[in-house]
Order: sequence, then structure tokens, then C-alpha cells
Amino acid sequence: MTDRPVDAGLLNPDWAGTAVELATDDAAYVRAMLDAETALARAQAALGLAPAAAASAVAAVAAGLKPDMSALAQRARTGGNPVIPLVADLTAAVAERDPGAAPYVHRGATSQDILDTATMLIAFRALSRVLDDLDRTADALARLAAAHRDTPMAGRTLTQHAVPTTFGLKAAGWRSLVCAARDRLAAVRAALPAQLGGAAGTLAAFHAFAAAEPGAGTGPASGAGDGSAGDLGLRLVARYAAEVGLAEPALPWHTLRAPVADLAAGLAFAAGALGKLAADVLTLSRTEIGEVAEGSGGGSSAMPHKANPVRATLVAAAARQVPALASVLFGSLAAEDERPAGAWHAEWQPLRQALRLVGGAAADTAELTAGLRVRPGRMRANLGLTGGLIVSERLAAELAPLIGRAEAKRALTEAARRAAEEGTGLAEALRADPAVTHALPQAKLRELLDPAGYLGSAPALVDRALGRTERS
Amino acid sequence: MTDRPVDAGLLNPDWAGTAVELATDDAAYVRAMLDAETALARAQAALGLAPAAAASAVAAVAAGLKPDMSALAQRARTGGNPVIPLVADLTAAVAERDPGAAPYVHRGATSQDILDTATMLIAFRALSRVLDDLDRTADALARLAAAHRDTPMAGRTLTQHAVPTTFGLKAAGWRSLVCAARDRLAAVRAALPAQLGGAAGTLAAFHAFAAAEPGAGTGPASGAGDGSAGDLGLRLVARYAAEVGLAEPALPWHTLRAPVADLAAGLAFAAGALGKLAADVLTLSRTEIGEVAEGSGGGSSAMPHKANPVRATLVAAAARQVPALASVLFGSLAAEDERPAGAWHAEWQPLRQALRLVGGAAADTAELTAGLRVRPGRMRANLGLTGGLIVSERLAAELAPLIGRAEAKRALTEAARRAAEEGTGLAEALRADPAVTHALPQAKLRELLDPAGYLGSAPALVDRALGRTERS
Amino acid sequence: MTDRPVDAGLLNPDWAGTAVELATDDAAYVRAMLDAETALARAQAALGLAPAAAASAVAAVAAGLKPDMSALAQRARTGGNPVIPLVADLTAAVAERDPGAAPYVHRGATSQDILDTATMLIAFRALSRVLDDLDRTADALARLAAAHRDTPMAGRTLTQHAVPTTFGLKAAGWRSLVCAARDRLAAVRAALPAQLGGAAGTLAAFHAFAAAEPGAGTGPASGAGDGSAGDLGLRLVARYAAEVGLAEPALPWHTLRAPVADLAAGLAFAAGALGKLAADVLTLSRTEIGEVAEGSGGGSSAMPHKANPVRATLVAAAARQVPALASVLFGSLAAEDERPAGAWHAEWQPLRQALRLVGGAAADTAELTAGLRVRPGRMRANLGLTGGLIVSERLAAELAPLIGRAEAKRALTEAARRAAEEGTGLAEALRADPAVTHALPQAKLRELLDPAGYLGSAPALVDRALGRTERS
Amino acid sequence: MTDRPVDAGLLNPDWAGTAVELATDDAAYVRAMLDAETALARAQAALGLAPAAAASAVAAVAAGLKPDMSALAQRARTGGNPVIPLVADLTAAVAERDPGAAPYVHRGATSQDILDTATMLIAFRALSRVLDDLDRTADALARLAAAHRDTPMAGRTLTQHAVPTTFGLKAAGWRSLVCAARDRLAAVRAALPAQLGGAAGTLAAFHAFAAAEPGAGTGPASGAGDGSAGDLGLRLVARYAAEVGLAEPALPWHTLRAPVADLAAGLAFAAGALGKLAADVLTLSRTEIGEVAEGSGGGSSAMPHKANPVRATLVAAAARQVPALASVLFGSLAAEDERPAGAWHAEWQPLRQALRLVGGAAADTAELTAGLRVRPGRMRANLGLTGGLIVSERLAAELAPLIGRAEAKRALTEAARRAAEEGTGLAEALRADPAVTHALPQAKLRELLDPAGYLGSAPALVDRALGRTERS
Repeated sequence: MTDRPVDAGLLNPDWAGTAVELATDDAAYVRAMLDAETALARAQAALGLAPAAAASAVAAVAAGLKPDMSALAQRARTGGNPVIPLVADLTAAVAERDPGAAPYVHRGATSQDILDTATMLIAFRALSRVLDDLDRTADALARLAAAHRDTPMAGRTLTQHAVPTTFGLKAAGWRSLVCAARDRLAAVRAALPAQLGGAAGTLAAFHAFAAAEPGAGTGPASGAGDGSAGDLGLRLVARYAAEVGLAEPALPWHTLRAPVADLAAGLAFAAGALGKLAADVLTLSRTEIGEVAEGSGGGSSAMPHKANPVRATLVAAAARQVPALASVLFGSLAAEDERPAGAWHAEWQPLRQALRLVGGAAADTAELTAGLRVRPGRMRANLGLTGGLIVSERLAAELAPLIGRAEAKRALTEAARRAAEEGTGLAEALRADPAVTHALPQAKLRELLDPAGYLGSAPALVDRALGRTERS
Repeated sequence: MTDRPVDAGLLNPDWAGTAVELATDDAAYVRAMLDAETALARAQAALGLAPAAAASAVAAVAAGLKPDMSALAQRARTGGNPVIPLVADLTAAVAERDPGAAPYVHRGATSQDILDTATMLIAFRALSRVLDDLDRTADALARLAAAHRDTPMAGRTLTQHAVPTTFGLKAAGWRSLVCAARDRLAAVRAALPAQLGGAAGTLAAFHAFAAAEPGAGTGPASGAGDGSAGDLGLRLVARYAAEVGLAEPALPWHTLRAPVADLAAGLAFAAGALGKLAADVLTLSRTEIGEVAEGSGGGSSAMPHKANPVRATLVAAAARQVPALASVLFGSLAAEDERPAGAWHAEWQPLRQALRLVGGAAADTAELTAGLRVRPGRMRANLGLTGGLIVSERLAAELAPLIGRAEAKRALTEAARRAAEEGTGLAEALRADPAVTHALPQAKLRELLDPAGYLGSAPALVDRALGRTERS
Repeated sequence: MTDRPVDAGLLNPDWAGTAVELATDDAAYVRAMLDAETALARAQAALGLAPAAAASAVAAVAAGLKPDMSALAQRARTGGNPVIPLVADLTAAVAERDPGAAPYVHRGATSQDILDTATMLIAFRALSRVLDDLDRTADALARLAAAHRDTPMAGRTLTQHAVPTTFGLKAAGWRSLVCAARDRLAAVRAALPAQLGGAAGTLAAFHAFAAAEPGAGTGPASGAGDGSAGDLGLRLVARYAAEVGLAEPALPWHTLRAPVADLAAGLAFAAGALGKLAADVLTLSRTEIGEVAEGSGGGSSAMPHKANPVRATLVAAAARQVPALASVLFGSLAAEDERPAGAWHAEWQPLRQALRLVGGAAADTAELTAGLRVRPGRMRANLGLTGGLIVSERLAAELAPLIGRAEAKRALTEAARRAAEEGTGLAEALRADPAVTHALPQAKLRELLDPAGYLGSAPALVDRALGRTERS
Repeated sequence: MTDRPVDAGLLNPDWAGTAVELATDDAAYVRAMLDAETALARAQAALGLAPAAAASAVAAVAAGLKPDMSALAQRARTGGNPVIPLVADLTAAVAERDPGAAPYVHRGATSQDILDTATMLIAFRALSRVLDDLDRTADALARLAAAHRDTPMAGRTLTQHAVPTTFGLKAAGWRSLVCAARDRLAAVRAALPAQLGGAAGTLAAFHAFAAAEPGAGTGPASGAGDGSAGDLGLRLVARYAAEVGLAEPALPWHTLRAPVADLAAGLAFAAGALGKLAADVLTLSRTEIGEVAEGSGGGSSAMPHKANPVRATLVAAAARQVPALASVLFGSLAAEDERPAGAWHAEWQPLRQALRLVGGAAADTAELTAGLRVRPGRMRANLGLTGGLIVSERLAAELAPLIGRAEAKRALTEAARRAAEEGTGLAEALRADPAVTHALPQAKLRELLDPAGYLGSAPALVDRALGRTERS
């Protein structure tokens, strides 16, 4: 059995080689599991439940352990989780260095304590990468929104031109979603808890070892399972959480999976937030639209002219996958007993893959927004495609008080029909209607037909979204 | 076309007839859409954009409008949403009462403004029912946890007895998830925003009407789209949100679907939290286990003895569905343009169904927990099923310092094997092992084999979860 | 309690008022459940297990029963399914007409026998509507494919123009998916089985009634549960299936949910197949592209010029929902015991909603394809947008043997760059390159740059897809 | 950049080390992509579109190519798929061996041609492993069903004892689902098509190369894109499919994803079918039930007595994940244009993971069923737990003709209540009821109360399911 790589990321251009890959690969999980074992030994030592020397030995050996990954993966099949063979390796290695320390490896813990804690560590580290990229993205979008606060472009609904908007408002909207994702994920990250409960979540083994071992649990560690604040188990959990650098859980959460569900929610939100931006970039990049382009589009070997929106494509692909992965994680909330037969195991890979997809998507989006090429000229040209129809709503509003609501509607509908049929613009068609020309002088009509003059609150909304104005 | 009931809840015993049904049926949506139209008219009047009399007329007519539901549903097919025909009906009815008021119906708004606002109102009202039921459930669980703080029962992992726990800890765990669901949903509810953006989210039509109409928008409503806090559009949104009783949005969110995604997350969490409780009740209700029973189990026409855990069954069914519905909602975050062609429409029914399923599940769980019959005698009997093996972890801990770790493991493994083969208890098997009897007096062995003496921190955890002790 | 409609389809413009609505509403389910009860009584009578008069009475009463739907829905809550109260109503009504017949209502059956059979009947009827619409769609697409076999348009990959294709090939591709969906659903429909197993799938009650009742089960019905082909239970199932018009199941399938999973697969396939067509129509309908338009686009009250692709939008919305509903149905395959506590109940509404969404989408697509307006002029104009770059692949292939592969690539890359920068076409840029002009005469270059001359096998593929040629 | 293993299967005990792992790892994909390139070169040579020597060179170099996986994965980021860098490596290696052959590498193809073909090859190979394991499982289940055709056990519905069934019927039911899964996957495997369409699915480049190259495409390859059966592109596709060993597609299916959707359906079905078996094994393995046990249950380091149903647990975990992955694949049917920006990319990893999960689950289930320990004694003991209530349905049927239906129901309900309250069996309670004892002699009552006598058609159903009898 060799350390043959099963997967090196070949099917995952969305995250291969990004920071989140390193934070979530098998080696990172092994490292995090060993971190959990070290924290457990240290916490027990701190409470007098293990000799300080034993904790040191565990920590030292864990720091240097480099198990054969493929072998470990395959040995995990027997018991159904990777902690069992890893603990065996760690115990053997500790025994080799300090036989007296070996009994303190993993003592009192259950596999889920270690794997859940490791998963939270992985999530913490991966989310830190994600948050950095979301911050970079938000900054880039703030710059785009400010720069294009007043850049008119077509607002589109159900694929059709509706009324004008500005690219700044679009960018500000993207940013608001990115910031919302960041806020949700930051809150989730801050609450990620350590896991420690023992075989069935009662921490009973720690009491047993304390009771059995002469002198153990005395002094600072004393305290029966009597509900007092000094309960040994609770104190151990607190210390363990501090050692491993995660939040202290209120209860062991072997089958109370709020932390995993919160991760699912945050990751699905983030994937969708980035997916919105990607969906717009893909649309606006279309050959016929051409209003934006990725800084360095992906090429094609066969077609030298192509510059594909590759980053947006990969983000869109991630956004299609994460909600389904999240549905598995939410489904695992309904976990029976004190450890479920399947619901827990079903979390591992979907959670990792969701972290990776969001991590890759965040990196992609940061790169995309930093280099996005915006083409106000194309935006302006597209605004003219309907020959003025894009401001028909405005004309209706202006004409109504002048010639009556019904008459205004008739004039516009007729002009729109004629403009479409004859390929002329709305302006020309309206100019042929005496009712209109009578009511509106040419100059006024021209002014009303300028899309740049019908932006409504778009600039004000940009200012608010960027925090430039007080909320009214 | 008659008001034929398409669905009366026949396939939905999970929520038919519950409070959430009334809060989410078609009539409730129509009512909420009319509430949104009324709020819009009033807000415009408040800012001088419409005559006060027009707003009053709209409000009065809307309050009394009773459209033919089936006809409305079918007329919605043409334009793809129910707002278009409803606005037509409302406009006609207002015109009948006060022709001058008719132009002010829906003025400046887009269909999505009304349907999104209505959906948020529906969600607000439905969540209020859900929160009530979650509160009732949490109270019932607090009572159960306190009453059974020390009631021993088997802790089970991967379907097998592991070590003892207490029913109080199980109930406290259920309650912690229920409270977490309540907290998340309460936060979501508090942030549900009104929607107002006009055709493409720029609020431009309101500016146009203000500009076109003599005297409109003067006084308190003045303000150009210049980013000042006094922007007409922003002020109108603020007033509209206040009128309709929802939060003021930072931006129009036609394609920035954070509120819907947050609902998805909260509802999927709640369904799973209740699903965990249901999964445990179903397991513990099994004929062979019998540790709990629903107060009034569902009967069977053919089998007079059956008392099915029907409430838990329906909750479990809901927990299987909501994550998938949430995945659709998360997927709709990736909505292109200023209004998407499909992503928005795909939200409507899944969101309503998720509200209903969670509403029904919360009602079911409140009823279930209020009437749950707990059977400590069966718990105690089941604890004895493995003849002491359920505390083998404890014996290993106790024996190790006395006879050495390896020897302790050998003795226990052998005794466990013999106990299983010969059908004797672990106690008897251990008593036949000289190494054990030499180390442990009979009385001590008997004490160690008592499951009730191996509860670890379970009682202390209950106290903490119920807020009876300070966190250490 | 009145027959108040909870839902009349207000949030479902995708299927409200379509044929599939009538086939799947609550009344249709009640009708189908009563059909199942009638079939059961008749089958028992046919085998001598019930008096013929009793079967006639059940059939007659069932045919006329009109229960209060809302009341029925609410009474279903107690036992968790609608069969229990419906059987109570039916039994009471039969007893009123013929007291001696009442004991034969639902005799030997379990609720799931009736609801599963009813669901299969509903699925059969709904799929018949769907298949009709898919056939209509395939016909319309065959006409479009034939008419536009050689109509050139831009082939697009990753949103960018790639090389030319024909609209006929696109329509032929849509048709191939629609036909594939039709074939899969037709196969599923043909196999939909009746359900009959009794309390736990052994049909034991029928044996008991036969044994207990003097003379029952004699003659044609005789046969013990001994595995012979003459087994009473098996014969009853066969007769029941024939009576109700569904396939005979090999085994009772209370928890062997192949039929539901097959429905899930077929419906998810169909939704996606229609979703592909809708995605293309939405793209091609964009204001900037304009190559197709729905025959009667949905309008907008505020914007008189808008013609939204509403049918495609609703189909796209359906395609976003059905995969998630299918995931619930697939998940319910993992159903424990002889009737699961939740997995079965979780199927009901998702299956109905999937039938409705596919039914609505099929009706929408049939309408859409029948009226689709195709604009070859816009297709031709768009083909010219890249100034010849869309055939750069062809030029590379032609130039390579003439001037060498590397030189050809250089020339094209340079020309593409220059064409993009200077806004000239590729033709002009190439004409400025001596290496090219030396190798290719002007006329040849012009010919090579004609997109209509670079259609490859597109016409041949259309012919094959329409069955006009033999497969090679 | 080193060939660092990103994942070695550490979080995937469900499939790590199984045959499907080898069939689906990154190296297998690279191999399959190179197989596709070789087939393409050979097919072109066969049609005279490339020199035979070039095809040989491509084949020889491809056979020996061993790219750096991690580097390849990271280079795939630029263009968004792994084919681009792999083709670059292959071209360079071919150029080194035979410069004249290099232009024929990947000639005329698009990345998707290669990756889709490779994916189908992977699916074919992985499904072959799966089908083997399903066959093994079906055989083991046939043996179990036959051996336990008449072994009575409790039938359970909604977690409660209902009426007796046999373990043979349960095993036969499991087998019927496994066989159904096998049939569906075998059909899917047989239809897996090769992919070849070129840049936008028209095969145009092959025509261009044929036209440009002197002498190419003559002889057997001649044929214009004129729809005749002799069309060059169609003939090339046919030859390519034959070379690579997959079915010939009717059309290029870059965005006609029936093959992927069919895989999704088959895999989701299989996961659920195995998940049903696992759900039952998990239930029946419970400490309190103990009717079956895995041959070699997974142990626990801390609790020497535990024998966890690990195989069933991992299968259950897979069954929770595959439906969600399938929903992503079904969702990707709605793929716009001639290559979508995201929908295609979103298929890769979910499809691979679904293959792996089903492959692992099939291997697990084959192992589980081969070694399953069945405990008829425990089944018999559990049948007695309700003291006869499990056959109350039978008693009701028998008593009704003797004492009247209403009286029978009264007697049984009362006896059931008394039996439950007083802890006596139903037999004793009935014996205390004069109405009953009057009607039924003691011996008859005893006989009726024997669960083994109330198996209905269970044995006959087993026989039919195992094909021992003709269908009636």
C-alpha cells in the first residue's frame, strides 16, 4: 500500500490549487485530528487527570506523526471512521517513545469527539481563507460601484430590457450580497465549538478515570457530576476547547448538529451570493451584450478569438452544487440516538466539498472582480437597442397629465408597435403622432428619451449601499 | 369558472387545519398582496405623490375585495404571476368607487414589489405561529428534562447500547435544538424586509410621476435622486416599509435574495431540529424498546392494539422534505439580471410549503411533547439487557490501575464474549475470573455494575442546559 | 367546517388551469381512493370472498360519495393519512344503503394499499396528459427542425460565439430530449402497479377472512398460502390490479418503492429536458439576441413595449424545482420496516407537485413551440457580430496546410487581436497580412469567411435526428 | 509542484480501497481521457483524415504518458477543464517522438468531446464493478430468502408490531429492489455513448480538415455534410465510438444530457435500494431487537462489547447523499447554448462521487449479506412481546362470523387494553371473556394465537419473488 494520491483535484478546477485546498485536504484533517488529541491530553493534564509528562509526550509525537494516508483510509473501513486507525498509530508511536504515556492517548474520548473537533478546526481555517477573499471582493466591488455610480446601462427583467439602471447599482447590489455572506460566515466561524462527550455524551469515562486513579482529579479538578459549576466533565470540556482554540459547547453535540447546520446555511448562502454575481457576469459577457469581460478570459485551443468567462463559469458551477450538499447536511440534523448510524457519516464529505466549493468560488470571484473590464460604451449602445422603448415607462408618466392617461397609453402602445414593425426608433414614431408633438416640444421629448436621465434613485442607492449617506 | 377548491390539504395531514394553514393559504396571499397595495398608496400619499383621498379609496376597496380565486389563479398564467390580474381587479373596483383614484393603484410599482412584500408578510405571520409552538415545546421539554434529570436510560450509538445516559439529558438536548431553531427564526423574522424598487429596482417611476405631476413631491417629498438622505425614492421605501410593518431594506432586493435564503436556512434548521426529536421518539417508541409513547397514538382500523407515533411520523416526514425545498431557495440566489426568468418564480411554492411543513411540525411537536409518556421502568429494564456490558467502559477504567491495562482489557473482552455466548450477565462472567475477583470485592463489583452509578456529567449538563448553573 | 379552498393554484401559474391540475387535485385523489376501494370489493367478490351484492353496493356508494374535503383533510391528522376518515365515511354510507355490505368495505386492506393505488392511478392519468403534450411538442419541433435544417446561427459555448450551427440542429436536439423524456415516462406509466398487501404485506387478513367465513374462498378462490400459483393472496392481487387497471405487482411494495423512484426519475428527466429548451429560448429571446420570440409574450402593465418569454420562464422555474422534489422521493427508498414512519408520508406532496410541475411545463412547452417565432435575419446578423471570428477555426484548418500550422496560428491570432482592437472585421485584418493574401485569393477568403458555408454535419444530423436517413 | 496527494480517501470509508475507487480516481480519468484521444486519432486515420503513422504515434505516446497530477489539476484552472493542459502535454510528447504526428493530436475535437467520453468510460468501468457486487448481493439474498421462507418474525409498521411476516419475505423484498437496481444500471451502462461534436456540435472542423488536406477524406471517408448516410462527420462519430467501446450517439450531446441524467437516475435508485436494506439491518440489529447482526461488526476502542453494524451504517450514509448529488445532475439538464457556463462543470464531481458512493455501498452490501447472521430465536421471542396482540387482526376476522363484528371488536379492544394494563398476554385476557370462550375452544384459541400460523401469502410471495412459481 503506497501513498498513492486518489485525487489531486483533477475534476476540481474550481478549487484545485487554491488556499482552501491546502486547508481541507486529507493531510489537514489528520493534522487537525492530532491537534484534537493533543488538546485532550493537555486538558486532562491541566486538570490533574493525566501526568504532565504524558501530555507532553502525546503532543510531541502527534506533532511529528506522518501516517501513510492511503493505508489509513483503507483501515478506516473496518470501524467506519478514520479516528480508530489514527489513534492506533498514535498510541503505538507514543508507546515507543514513552510507554507510560500511551494509556493517556485518546483516554475517555470517543472517535466522534476527535473527528468533530477536527472538522470544526478545518472549517475555521477554511472559512478564514474564504473571509479574506470575500473582503477582497467587497473592496473591489466598492470601487466598481463608486466608479460607475452614474454609468447607465439597461436594467433587464425576464431577459428583456425594462428601464435603465446603473452599473454602479449593480455592483453595489453584488457587494451587498457578498457582505451579507461574509457577515453570516464570520458569525458561524466565531461560534464553531469543540466536541467532547465521550462514548454517549455524558463524559462519564473521565469521571471513571478520575475515580480509579489515585490522586487524579483532586485539587483543581475535583468535582462530582452533581450539577455544580465545578463538575469535572464540564471543566474538562472548557479547558479542552480553550486548548484547541474553539468555542466551548453548551452540551456535547454528537447528535445536536447545530454547528454543522449553521455551516450549511452559511456556505449555501455564500455560494448563492457569489452565484448571483457570476450569473450577471456571464450574461453581460455574452458576445451580443459585451458589457463586461473577465480580465483574462480562458482561451480555446481551437478558436483563437475566444475569451471565455471561466472564473464566472466555475463560480456558477459551484453555486449549482452547494445547495444540494447543504440539503444533505440539514438532513443530518435528524440524527437518532446518541450517535446516528449514517447521518453523521453522511456529513463528512459534503461539508468538506461545500467548504472547498465556496473557497474556490470566493477565490475566483476575488480574482474576477479585481480584473473585471467594464465597457460603458457597450452599455450605452445597448441602451439604444430598443430605440427609446426602454424609457417608455417615463414617457407614459410624463404624457399622462398632459394628454390623459388613456390617450398616453394609446400613443405609446401604437408608437411602440410602429417602432418595432418599421425598425425606427420610438422617438421617430412618437414624433409622427400629433397628440404627442402637440403636448411635448421636440427638445423636451429628446430629453425624456435619454436613458441617462431616467436613473431614479440608482445613484442614491449606491451611496447608501456604500455607506456614504445616513439611512433616512 | 367557479371557486372550486383545488387542494384542501388532503395530502397534508402534517399541516392541514393548523394555524399555519390559515396564515399561508391562497386567501392569505391575496390579503397580503392587497395590504401591500394599500401600504403603497398610503406611502405615496404621505409623501405628497398621491392625493390622500386616492389612498383612502384604495385602502377601502382593497379591504373589501374578494376575488374569485380559481379565476385569479388561471388569469395569472398569461403574465406568469398573480399580481397582474389582482391589480386589474383592484383597479377596476377602485375606478368604480372613485375614478380619480384608479390611476394611483399600484402606481410606480412592479409585480415583484407586491408579491415579495406579500410573501414577507406571510412569512412574518406564519413564523409567529411557529415561534409560539417552539416556545411551548421548549417549555414542555424543560419540564421533562428537569423531571428526568437523573432517570437513567441506555445511551445508544450506531444502534447499539453504549453507556448509560439520562432521559433528562436527552430532553435537554432536544430543547437546546428547539431553542436554537427559535432563536434563528426569530432573528430571521425580525429582519424580513418590505420590497419596493419599481420596474428594475431604481424607483425611477416614482421620480417620473413626481416630476410630471404638478405639485407632487413638493414639501416633505422633495428630493432628487442625488444620493442625499432626502432622495425621494429612499424616503418612499422607508414610509412604505413602515406602513406595511416590515423592515426597511437597504436596497431593492429583486435579485438580492438574502431574505429568502435566510428563511430557507431558518426553516431547514427548524425542520431538522424537530426531526431529531422525532427520530428519537420513533426509536424509543418501538415495540421492543417502549421507553416513551405519544400521549394519544394514532390507531389502526384493522389492528386494535396499535398506537402509532403519528405526530413523530409526520414531523419526520416534514424533516425529509424541507432541506430539499431549502435547496431550491438557496439555488434561487443565483438570479440573473434585475428580475430573473425562473429563479424568482421557483421560490414561491417551495417557500410556502416549507413554512407549512415547519408550522405543522412545530404544532405536532408541541402536542407531542406536552403529552409524551415516559416510562422509566422500561428504561431501567433495557439498561439491563446487556447484562452489565453497558458499563464495561467503567469497569475497564476501574480495573486498569488495579491489574494493569492489558490484563483489564483481556478480562473484560473474555467476560463479554462468555456473557454473550452463555447468555449470562457480565457480572457472573467476571466473577468467574480470578484476576477480577482478586482485585475487586463483590460489593464493589456490584456497585460498579449499576448503570445508574455511571451517569458522568449528565445531571450537570442538564442543569447547565436549563440555565440552572453558571457556565464554568 | 366548510369546503373552503385552501389553495386554488394562486402561486402556481405554471400549472393552474392546465389539464394536469384537474387530474391531481384533492377531488381526484378522493376519486382514485374510492376507485381503489371499489376494485378491492369487486376483486374479493370475484374470488368468492365477498357477496357480489356487497361489491355492487360499495361500488354504487363510492361512485356517489362526495365528502367534505376540508373536513376530511383535518380528520386525516389523527391517524396521519386520509384513507382512515374516507373509509369511515364510505363505510357509513354503505351501511346506510346496505348494512350487510358494510363489513366488506376496505376489508383486509391497509390504508397504504388504498393510497398507493390511488397515487398510481393519479400518476397514470396525469402522465397521460403529459405524454400528449410531449407528443405535440415533438411534432412542433420536428417541423421547426425541418424548416430550419440549413438556417445558420451562432453556436455558443460558455456564453461566447464559437462556430456556426443551424437552428434546425438546435430544434432537433430539443426534440431528441423531449422524445427521450416521452419514452421514459411512457415506460414508467406502463409499469405503474396496484398496491395490495394488507397490514404488513403478507395479505394474511384475506386468508383469515376466507378461512373464517363459511364457504368463502371455495371454488375459484381456494388455495392456501403455500406458494402454489393458486395462492389466494396472489390471485386476489392479480384480480384487484385488473379491476383497477394497473400493473400487477410482483410483491407488495409498501417499502419497496421502485414505482415511486421510477416516477421521480422520469419526472426529473422530463423537467430537465423541457428546461433545456426553455433555457435556450430565454437566451435567444434576450433583447440583444432576439433570434426567437414566444408567440404571445407576457406583457407588462408599466412597460408597453415588453413581451416577456413567460412560458419559458415558467418552464425554467419548474426545472429548478423538480430535481429537489425527486431527491425527496429517491430518499424515501430507504424506508425501514414494513411501513416506514415518515419516508412514505414524505412522498405524497412532492410526487403530486412534481407531476403538476411537469404537467404544467409540458403544456407550456407545447404552447411555446407551437407559436415560436424564429428570426433568421437576426441569426444572420448576429453571426456577423464577430466580424468573421466565428469561422476562425475553419481558417486555421485551411491555412495550416498552405503556410504551416504555426504560421497559420500566428496570422489568425494577430488578425483576431487587430480586428478586436480596431473594430474591423477579421476579413479586413487578414487581408492586411501578406502571408495570408499570398496563400489565399480574395474570392477564396471571402468564401471561407461565410458562416453559412461552415455548418459541418449540422444538416446531416438534423436528418438523422428526424429519422430521414438510415443510421450509418 | 509535487504529486502531493490531496485526498487519499480519508473521509470516505464508504468507498476507500474498494474496486470503484481504482476505477474512478484521477489517474483513471487521465487514462480514460487519453483513451479518448487515441480513439479519435485512430478513427481519423481509419477514415483517411490522418496518417496511420500519426495515429500510431498518438496511441503509443498516450499509452505511456504519466503527467504530474497535481500540476495538471492546477493548470486546469486557467481554462476551466483538465483536457486543455492534458492535450498540451500529449501534444508535446507526441511532437518529441514524431513531429509530424503532433498536429493530429485532438484535431477537430473540443475539450468536452474528450472529457465526456472519458466520463462515460469511467462510468462504464465503475458500473461493471457495481453490477458484480449487486449480483453477489442478489445471490446471497436469494439464499437467505429461501432458507427463511417460513421463518416468522414481526412485521412492523410505523415502528410498531403489526402482524407477522417471514424473514424470507423481507430478504426477498430486499432482493427484488437489488435486482431492480441492477436491471436499471445494466440498461444505463449499455447505452453510455461516446461524445464527439467539435467546437459547437456540428463536427465542422473535421470537414474543414478533410477539405483542406490534399487527399484527406477521399476513399472511404468521402462524403459531404449533406445529410446522406455517408456524411463524413457521422461516419467519424461511428468509428470513434467503436474505437473507444461506447455506444454511438444519435447526436452530439454536449447540452443534451440524457446519458448523465440516466446515470443519475440509476445511481439514485441503486443507493436507495441498498439504503432500504441497510435501514432494515440497522433496525433489526438494535440491541433490543437483535434479530440480525453483521458478520463482523465494527468494534469500539472504549467499549469492548460493541459490535456496530458498520457496513449498514456506511450504506445508509451513502443513501443520504446520492439523491442530492442526483438532483445536481438532473438540474444540469437545463444547460443553455451549445456548451453551458456552469451546468456541465457542475456534473463532474457529483457524478464521480455518486459512482463511488454506490460502488462502495454495493461492495459493503455484498459483504454484509454474505455474512449476515440471522437469529430466528430472537425473531420468535420478539413475536411474543405483545402477548398475542400481533395476531389480533386474525382474531377479529375469526371472531366476527362467530359473535358478530361489533362484539368481536369490543372483545378484542377490551382484551388488548387489559393485556396492556395488567401485563398479561392477550390469550389470558381473552380467556377471561365469556363471549370469547363460548365461541372458541381453548385449543382453537391457542392455535389462532400462534404467530407462525398467520403468515398469509408470505411463503408464496417468496416463491414468486425467487422465480420458483409461475406468475398466476
